[in-house]
Amino acid sequence: MIKLIAQSSPKTGPGLIEGIGDDCAIIEGCNGRDYLVTTDALFEGIHFRRDWISPKTLGRKALSVNLSDIAAMGGRPLFYLVNIGIPKGMPKNEIELIFEGMAQIASANKVVLIGGDTCASSGGILLTITVIGEADRAKAVTRSGAHSGDTVYVTGTLGNAALGLAFLEKGVRGLEAREFIKRHDDPTPRISTGQWLCASTCASSMIDISDGLAQDLGHIAEASGVGIKIYTEALPLSENFIQAANFCGKDSLKLALTGGEDYELAFTVAGDKLGLFEKMLAVVAPTFGHKVTKVGEVCEGSGVQIIDIHGADIGLSNGGFEHKW
Amino acid sequence: MIKLIAQSSPKTGPGLIEGIGDDCAIIEGCNGRDYLVTTDALFEGIHFRRDWISPKTLGRKALSVNLSDIAAMGGRPLFYLVNIGIPKGMPKNEIELIFEGMAQIASANKVVLIGGDTCASSGGILLTITVIGEADRAKAVTRSGAHSGDTVYVTGTLGNAALGLAFLEKGVRGLEAREFIKRHDDPTPRISTGQWLCASTCASSMIDISDGLAQDLGHIAEASGVGIKIYTEALPLSENFIQAANFCGKDSLKLALTGGEDYELAFTVAGDKLGLFEKMLAVVAPTFGHKVTKVGEVCEGSGVQIIDIHGADIGLSNGGFEHKW
Repeated sequence: MIKLIAQSSPKTGPGLIEGIGDDCAIIEGCNGRDYLVTTDALFEGIHFRRDWISPKTLGRKALSVNLSDIAAMGGRPLFYLVNIGIPKGMPKNEIELIFEGMAQIASANKVVLIGGDTCASSGGILLTITVIGEADRAKAVTRSGAHSGDTVYVTGTLGNAALGLAFLEKGVRGLEAREFIKRHDDPTPRISTGQWLCASTCASSMIDISDGLAQDLGHIAEASGVGIKIYTEALPLSENFIQAANFCGKDSLKLALTGGEDYELAFTVAGDKLGLFEKMLAVVAPTFGHKVTKVGEVCEGSGVQIIDIHGADIGLSNGGFEHKW
Repeated sequence: MIKLIAQSSPKTGPGLIEGIGDDCAIIEGCNGRDYLVTTDALFEGIHFRRDWISPKTLGRKALSVNLSDIAAMGGRPLFYLVNIGIPKGMPKNEIELIFEGMAQIASANKVVLIGGDTCASSGGILLTITVIGEADRAKAVTRSGAHSGDTVYVTGTLGNAALGLAFLEKGVRGLEAREFIKRHDDPTPRISTGQWLCASTCASSMIDISDGLAQDLGHIAEASGVGIKIYTEALPLSENFIQAANFCGKDSLKLALTGGEDYELAFTVAGDKLGLFEKMLAVVAPTFGHKVTKVGEVCEGSGVQIIDIHGADIGLSNGGFEHKW
């Protein structure tokens, strides 16, 4: 559907640098900068259930997932606009708590609310946010810059948010589930890491992992006209996570590859910058508060291959996380 | 609610010129221009009924009402982003028709689709659009520039869209209703008139009439710290409209004052520019395709007074159009 729409739309306009097809659109800014624009929605019954997430956390998540798109291009977020549809009979203080949650994330990331609209909803809560950020002129990291020979990295750990959702679905809320539910409900956009990657000029392409690593790397592969190999033994799965996934009856590898809503960054580094990048990373990584892990490589061809410990392509479909309820 | 949110939000940020509180936010642009940003939603069951409007017309309206906010500041629209929530089982061609309708309005106004998101909706169709436009630096016309002594004007005719809604509610679809239903379903954003008013430097304040003339002039009165008098005998009500309103059992004056969704412009002109403005208007008005009518004046005080033909304040409440179903 998105492809269809993109194809039928004009691709150029005065001041337009990049239109549809990346984490953000890019338009001409001022003083050597570009503006980045992105919009994302959270609808009750599709993206969340009101009995599973508090209003404040919902507000935090709604803004965070939009900031993650700015992070994915190495941008600095500046402004946001909120459209909220409010169900009949929803207590006023719950609406205030949603805005309080957004304000917490806004304040932490120095983003200013500049507009929006509130109106009634005939169904559930409807939250649509637009974020405007900036990057230095022509420096935003897109999905289309990967080349054969580049190395693939991811930030943080994978699959935790999907495991959190699995716990929520099973009604497990105990101590064993809590860190994963938190990862699902309250993701951290990798804003400063994205900015560092952009400033380093080492990232040849980047995306945030919202639909699962395999599917999101598929977007980089397609936009860049390359293939990507992911090595399963390299995936950053914590011991905690593997145990909890077993406890939950889930395949940890599948969660890590196709589980959605991690909101980590996946990016590629060109061969000629790899040495420099690894040296810089060793210095700054301790300040990130999360790991950065080499998980694969860019090759000729197309699509994403999942290579197991024996060197075999285990042929996991590219299908990522599907929102359901 | 909007006031509450605005009060609790920071009002400044790097590059922010005007935040919450006008038709658009204003952020720093390039080459002597500012960017204007606005967002507006149309939700099924609140703003429209699927059995009352065709998918293509819905798409046209969704973009037009956003462009109207750009018109209200005298801006040139540039880009738009669309978030659409799609009900289960909605035929693909109906979704395409919505986008086709948006593309018609986009093409007519040279606006380019630069991003968005499509996802499932657990209820009806959810359409949220963000539009980015531009104005010359510091030239955008805000709500806050009206002064006592200014003259109040409106474009086009008033109440027609509200009468169209009344016909829809009564199930009247005949020839007598059609022009009014069209005004309700397919409003024309006054983009070129808004730009001319901005370029003329004669408009001291401006707003688009989405919630009814009385309520929207109330926003100008509040933002400008003034009072406004509307003269009922001056209101642009066509003979056609008065007859059709009678036929429909509606008070034409009330429709004109509190009926929503006209998407005409209301603006004020300062006393020292009035002569020049009237002369310029006489020259260019024939090219507009709609009337421009003097309907009132700005005075000391606060709020909006509705003055009848006998000089009495008929004390219509400021309450404008309320979306209902």
